[in-house]
Amino acid sequence: MDSALQFLEQHHVSTRDQLLDFLRFPSVSTDPDRTTDVAECAEWLANHLRRIGLPTVTVFQTDGHPIVYAEHLEAGPKAPTVLMYGHYDVQPVDPLHLWTNDPFEPTIRDGKVFARGATDDKGQVWIHVAAVEAMLSTGEPLPINLKLLIEGEEEIGSPNLSPFVRNHAAMLACDAVVVSDTAMFAPGQPSLVYGLRGLAYVEIHVDGPRRDLHSGSYGGPVANPLNALCSIIASMKDEQGRVTIDGFYDDVPAISDQERTALNALDYTSERLLHDIGQPDAGGEPGYSIVERLWTRPTLDVNGIIGGFTGEGAKTVLPAKAMAKVSMRLVPDQKHHHIVELITRHVERVTPAGVHSRVVDLHGADPVLVPLDAPALAAADWALRETFGTPCLYQREGGSIPVVELFSSALGVPTVLMGFGLNTENAHSPDEHFSLDHFRKGLDATVRFYHAMKTLA
Amino acid sequence: MDSALQFLEQHHVSTRDQLLDFLRFPSVSTDPDRTTDVAECAEWLANHLRRIGLPTVTVFQTDGHPIVYAEHLEAGPKAPTVLMYGHYDVQPVDPLHLWTNDPFEPTIRDGKVFARGATDDKGQVWIHVAAVEAMLSTGEPLPINLKLLIEGEEEIGSPNLSPFVRNHAAMLACDAVVVSDTAMFAPGQPSLVYGLRGLAYVEIHVDGPRRDLHSGSYGGPVANPLNALCSIIASMKDEQGRVTIDGFYDDVPAISDQERTALNALDYTSERLLHDIGQPDAGGEPGYSIVERLWTRPTLDVNGIIGGFTGEGAKTVLPAKAMAKVSMRLVPDQKHHHIVELITRHVERVTPAGVHSRVVDLHGADPVLVPLDAPALAAADWALRETFGTPCLYQREGGSIPVVELFSSALGVPTVLMGFGLNTENAHSPDEHFSLDHFRKGLDATVRFYHAMKTLA
Repeated sequence: MDSALQFLEQHHVSTRDQLLDFLRFPSVSTDPDRTTDVAECAEWLANHLRRIGLPTVTVFQTDGHPIVYAEHLEAGPKAPTVLMYGHYDVQPVDPLHLWTNDPFEPTIRDGKVFARGATDDKGQVWIHVAAVEAMLSTGEPLPINLKLLIEGEEEIGSPNLSPFVRNHAAMLACDAVVVSDTAMFAPGQPSLVYGLRGLAYVEIHVDGPRRDLHSGSYGGPVANPLNALCSIIASMKDEQGRVTIDGFYDDVPAISDQERTALNALDYTSERLLHDIGQPDAGGEPGYSIVERLWTRPTLDVNGIIGGFTGEGAKTVLPAKAMAKVSMRLVPDQKHHHIVELITRHVERVTPAGVHSRVVDLHGADPVLVPLDAPALAAADWALRETFGTPCLYQREGGSIPVVELFSSALGVPTVLMGFGLNTENAHSPDEHFSLDHFRKGLDATVRFYHAMKTLA
Repeated sequence: MDSALQFLEQHHVSTRDQLLDFLRFPSVSTDPDRTTDVAECAEWLANHLRRIGLPTVTVFQTDGHPIVYAEHLEAGPKAPTVLMYGHYDVQPVDPLHLWTNDPFEPTIRDGKVFARGATDDKGQVWIHVAAVEAMLSTGEPLPINLKLLIEGEEEIGSPNLSPFVRNHAAMLACDAVVVSDTAMFAPGQPSLVYGLRGLAYVEIHVDGPRRDLHSGSYGGPVANPLNALCSIIASMKDEQGRVTIDGFYDDVPAISDQERTALNALDYTSERLLHDIGQPDAGGEPGYSIVERLWTRPTLDVNGIIGGFTGEGAKTVLPAKAMAKVSMRLVPDQKHHHIVELITRHVERVTPAGVHSRVVDLHGADPVLVPLDAPALAAADWALRETFGTPCLYQREGGSIPVVELFSSALGVPTVLMGFGLNTENAHSPDEHFSLDHFRKGLDATVRFYHAMKTLA
């Protein structure tokens, strides 16, 4: 282990430069125009894994973007097997004009690397790739059997990963999964995430007259799809911020007093939120702390609306149609498909006369909780404490990593969420970045984690 | 008069072809990239007016787009003076993909000319230009003194016309104004409009967090500007379609029983609306007929909304800001500026905690009624009846022509609204067109109108 850590210390510049190469691929999975870029990123990653000495590397084609898979199984049948999961695809970059640098020309400023995918998730994937390279470079056998599964569709809901995992359950068999795609609670504060919210993401389409109309000639008797869409959306939450869709909270049990106390010990203040995002905690339900609203309560948010004339000036048009993207973050025991049914029924019920509406289920994920007594969690706890010099913090997370639920149901194993990002690193926003200090510490922690897995198994 | 009518009959093909040339200018006044095109259209129009024999033609520069002005004052001081007003600017063309032909490459199909501006207002301006050409070509003196005022900013609220008219009141002095920029009630049914709705057009901006956020990391405590905007807009109307802004209806008196009876004699059925626009009369207030809702009641409509992610796929973003364009059609005695004050106060009152809102007054116009006993109205009535062979219909109109109020207050004269368009001709929409039959009849009616003005004065 020490020689692997030494390798990382000696090669930290080239390790970082390799990450910059990885970040240069515009692997935007949701954009049909980027399909070739996504494929090239997968091929480049696979070739790199071959070059650092992984004996088996395969690029699996899917109905969408390819899955990169690599194995190193020479630790023997008695050694534990760890499956590392990550994703090489990234979010879209718009609004592009708000970026300080080209999102696909990584730039280092103030000890951070700025690029789309820096923290979500290429930077964190690279921690594992470089840690494996360091361990292989020592000439010693790996302490564990290792499997790397790096997909290209995480940002669009992993539509092809679920069948892939279920069809390759034997190949992917392992004792634990490790994922680095979450945020630490604060800079320098190692954190392990044991709960994730789920997601239900829909589009609501409202159609009115068959064409755009002059609001002077027709305004009055015509039902306006944009006004209707606003009414539909406004009807989904009350003034307190509580979701008013029938049955929405039915499967949300109150959390235990013990967990509530533990979570609220975390110092997430309104001041911190104001500092981070320029807004105090004005959203969500009354009676819940910020941490509780972030991690233990479901949400309903409009992600985008379009309709009518939105250019410069004043076009007096009654639009023929309108569309909103609406997503709900889910908590145990809500289920994605059931929630989509509930919102569909709600939209049907509240759609005003004269317009037609339909709800399209774009994608989703069920929420998940990881058992706190999993041995792999203890290995991660030790590795993080040893590296950061401070005890680990256990937290939930407001985002969704649908594969955690998948690994639990398809492979029957727990997932360790050992993330090195920060919520302030602009994942999904302009000027996404990743702390190079956390990157450096993440490398050491990951080498320690893989070694600790051997001891603890 | 007869030889002018004969000229029109003989030259109807070249008259139409000249209109097509006029329609080829992409004179979109709201688009800063079209400034040169707008100016070129004005110059071309002025040169044409010189060519057909108007002795004084001036292109007045303004702070915005130019005003074309021409005079023919040889009928003598005892003859009445008529000021014709129109506009050579047009609406934007988006969504472009819904056009059958290039909006600036006029195409004739089914006896209609399809192009942006065909009916609003270039086609109707051309009726006057060609009628004047016909009268001048006979070699006889014009029956009246004529002034032509054709502006390039009608579609953006005529910001420079009001000071122009007030500063040139002596030059523009006249006995009546004639405007052809309204719709006939039905094909072949000549109509005179005596009432126009006003307009108050605002933008509502809502600002939330200082940047777009990941909805997983921040969803819950964050107040979402798009949800807030929907609530603000939904709060402006009740489920019946009645506007709920405090004081909105205070200056709207009930119309007389006599006028109500006359208006409701017009055969505007729900079936006609369904046929024209693909939607029944589901909007507006209960207790008012379609005609009343169109012409005598104010409205509140969203013309456009933008915010967040609206591309393909599912981006889980909490948007930093959102914007809606909202316009209200006004009726006597509502005033544009007062209504903007009321909506601004309303938005302030209902804006949810955590977000900031502001209302921007884009433009507006006060509503207007034309006195039914004006002699010019009688001249138009005769000219239309003589040409179409059927009695004129008197109606109000749902749209706004702010200059009518301007001519009344600045020049002290009534305006004759003698329109040849149809509401089904897609003004402000894709595939705008103009009936060539109405164009042809409009030419004869306009020659007759100018001659009748001499007799009636």
